[in-house]
Amino acid sequence: MKTAITPTRAENFSEWYQNLITAADLAENAPVRGCMTVKPYGWAIWELMRAEMDRRIKATGVQNANFPLLIPIDFFNREAQHVAGFAKEAAVVTHYRLKMIDGNLQPDSESKLTDPYIIRPTSETIIGDAMSRWVQSYRDLPMKLNQWVNVMRWEMRPRMFLRTSEFNWQEGHNAFATHAEANADARRMHKLYADYMRDVLAIPVIMGEKTPEERFAGADHTYTTEQIMQDGKALQAGTSHDLGQHFSKSFGIQYLGTDGQLHHAWTTSWGTSTRMMGGLFMTHSDDDGLILPPAVAPHQVVIIPIARDGNEDALNEYAEKIASKLRAADIRVLADTSDMRGADKMWKWIKRGVPLRVEIGGREMDASQVTVTRRDLGKSSKQTLDLDVFVADVRSMLDSMQHDMYNAAAARNETMIHNIDALADLRAALDAGQIGFFRLKYEQTLSPEFEGLMDEFKISRRCLDDADPTYVFVAKSY
Amino acid sequence: MKTAITPTRAENFSEWYQNLITAADLAENAPVRGCMTVKPYGWAIWELMRAEMDRRIKATGVQNANFPLLIPIDFFNREAQHVAGFAKEAAVVTHYRLKMIDGNLQPDSESKLTDPYIIRPTSETIIGDAMSRWVQSYRDLPMKLNQWVNVMRWEMRPRMFLRTSEFNWQEGHNAFATHAEANADARRMHKLYADYMRDVLAIPVIMGEKTPEERFAGADHTYTTEQIMQDGKALQAGTSHDLGQHFSKSFGIQYLGTDGQLHHAWTTSWGTSTRMMGGLFMTHSDDDGLILPPAVAPHQVVIIPIARDGNEDALNEYAEKIASKLRAADIRVLADTSDMRGADKMWKWIKRGVPLRVEIGGREMDASQVTVTRRDLGKSSKQTLDLDVFVADVRSMLDSMQHDMYNAAAARNETMIHNIDALADLRAALDAGQIGFFRLKYEQTLSPEFEGLMDEFKISRRCLDDADPTYVFVAKSY
Repeated sequence: MKTAITPTRAENFSEWYQNLITAADLAENAPVRGCMTVKPYGWAIWELMRAEMDRRIKATGVQNANFPLLIPIDFFNREAQHVAGFAKEAAVVTHYRLKMIDGNLQPDSESKLTDPYIIRPTSETIIGDAMSRWVQSYRDLPMKLNQWVNVMRWEMRPRMFLRTSEFNWQEGHNAFATHAEANADARRMHKLYADYMRDVLAIPVIMGEKTPEERFAGADHTYTTEQIMQDGKALQAGTSHDLGQHFSKSFGIQYLGTDGQLHHAWTTSWGTSTRMMGGLFMTHSDDDGLILPPAVAPHQVVIIPIARDGNEDALNEYAEKIASKLRAADIRVLADTSDMRGADKMWKWIKRGVPLRVEIGGREMDASQVTVTRRDLGKSSKQTLDLDVFVADVRSMLDSMQHDMYNAAAARNETMIHNIDALADLRAALDAGQIGFFRLKYEQTLSPEFEGLMDEFKISRRCLDDADPTYVFVAKSY
Repeated sequence: MKTAITPTRAENFSEWYQNLITAADLAENAPVRGCMTVKPYGWAIWELMRAEMDRRIKATGVQNANFPLLIPIDFFNREAQHVAGFAKEAAVVTHYRLKMIDGNLQPDSESKLTDPYIIRPTSETIIGDAMSRWVQSYRDLPMKLNQWVNVMRWEMRPRMFLRTSEFNWQEGHNAFATHAEANADARRMHKLYADYMRDVLAIPVIMGEKTPEERFAGADHTYTTEQIMQDGKALQAGTSHDLGQHFSKSFGIQYLGTDGQLHHAWTTSWGTSTRMMGGLFMTHSDDDGLILPPAVAPHQVVIIPIARDGNEDALNEYAEKIASKLRAADIRVLADTSDMRGADKMWKWIKRGVPLRVEIGGREMDASQVTVTRRDLGKSSKQTLDLDVFVADVRSMLDSMQHDMYNAAAARNETMIHNIDALADLRAALDAGQIGFFRLKYEQTLSPEFEGLMDEFKISRRCLDDADPTYVFVAKSY
């Protein structure tokens, strides 16, 4: 059977992913090392994702602010683990002027900075510095801040949405009077992420704590949401960190307590990024293109007139009529009255993953009907409905699709988690090409034998099992 | 009379402005050369401003996208005027790794880039490059793109919101098949900005074309919206450029026309930034702090319980009751039940420019009343109303305030525009310390005598008079 995307997932998952991005017109590689350009359709998805995440974050009492793009190297240097984690991928600004020299435009040596800056890879340091001024007394706590910004981590093996040198994200930074509050906050935001992925992205996640080896650079505890892609690989999609007093001590975030004494605050940080879009695409799409959960679909319904014998104008008018009824019901809808052929339009919107396709021809128009197809179910779901019935039911059809997509992904995940007793069994499974997450005793992963398996099969510890933290999940990952 | 902000506007406008920013908790200087940190209250204003601007831009058929932060120097170099305009303030990224050498963290010389990047000062070049791939046929036109991003122009004389090395903005980039369409687009977006400033920011602007001397680097026509601050200085708040074929020729943006021939497209660009916030603050505020137009006030109403004799709990409950009624009427409201003294709360919200302050004491509570004061009118507007009346009227009270603020600013502007016949009269006016905009023949400004006045009094050509483009407005400016 011919598919819209070649190769198929089964043939070459990685190439399929690249071609999916192109076919759905989501993004392209930029003429800047490791960076991508997000095209309008991709960005419209992100705007919907961002709006809902922002709403949920603000509902926890967090306020948005905006901190500088550039970070003084001296700041960066104050937390040793942090430096170790990020120094090797830092874009460095060293000059502030260009000069034409012998016809070549180059950095003006007279503009060399005594103290260079790095482009933020994350903002614990510069926000820690601000908090050291903003937090004075216990009355200022908790302080809850977030920003939606671009960050940069120089990337040698870039992959659109999954790993790009520049990416867009939200980074939250909260400060508390006690460790108990900070840890509860890190767990709260961790749960918020998992709930969001379930409710909005229709993605089931494995929640758990990172092992010490995999923690964020400068954290006491890192809580992660791990998604399982269709090829069985893990995608770390959102992390929440209990930073202890590492940054409050490095930056002097102190408050005068009710006891009249100065205390260092306890801080957290937590972030989700455009990487989630990669997870979204790799979780739900098929060999014909994207499948978008209705909650984040720029067009939840697309109306496609299939014209014949010069009935274009009447059909386009009928399409606009349907669109205006749906718009009144708060549905994001597009009437595609462009002059492409009907079949080309249909494939365009299949590839872009529009949840409901409404095809209308002369027959539907004359009978005040619509023919509706659900993107995830395809032809088997095709049905012709009275227009009024469709308008009345469209919301619940979208809701059903959202739930069904989650359930399908959850059912697939269950087949992808394997319990392992002995490391020899793990080797056998990997040798046999078994895909997915392997659950084994964390202790077993501290052996040289496991180190060998990590190198050989490119697997890594994803997170401890929340249900029993003596177990860890191990998988290949993006 | 004691004022909340010292010095007053009359005493020292520039210091007043700095202190206003601090008193209203909007922003602070960042530990990065020329940059600011926008604090939560300031950012909440920007989020409201941005949402409404975004809505208006999208209504013209523009789609948002996201282009890289870094621009290859080679791109930047392709349009000669563009380079001349921005090379002297470009932040340059030359390395992609840090290394610890003798205890100092510094750029790793082995990570030096053969081709350095600059941080975008604006994105005509990299978007032009993308458009050269995305535009193929006349069917792809018009192409209308916008992005909300941070940009950087190294700033030697920074001033919060008005001139910072990094700032946030939207930059729109449209492409058309004909010059007429492109020019009409540049004018359409120009008008959109002026309408927005009038309707949303309550700021009257002077609309006009920049003189050739003041055009954007690489434009054929630059249309500007000039605001007049309370000290008579101009603030250029939004500009829209007809770029002719400068960038389409430099980047090869070509389309196959209906005539079967390749043609270069005609492009526009147009932007507004956080600079508008500076204009907002300097247009409306007074010696007691900010005055926010209701359309962009994070809290349109603040309820302030003035407790006495241990009635705190009952009053706080009454405050929450009022807040929930207003929230149901879609008003952005805050019940300030914090444990500050009533008078301190009042001054806090006066300084932050909340449109309507609702004070409630035991008397109001017992009578189901509220005492309401409009921020722009102060004590003279204070009135006690039945709660139900207030809830029914609050929307129209806010609308009136929005209109009155615009009218007050427009009336003030009228006193600030002066017609000048001879340059000697201009010198006399400036010598006498007259503030505002001076309107004279553009031709007169091409003389050496005028050049002398520009240097001596730091005045500049702001824009041609739309009503009669043989005239130009001249003023000091931010």
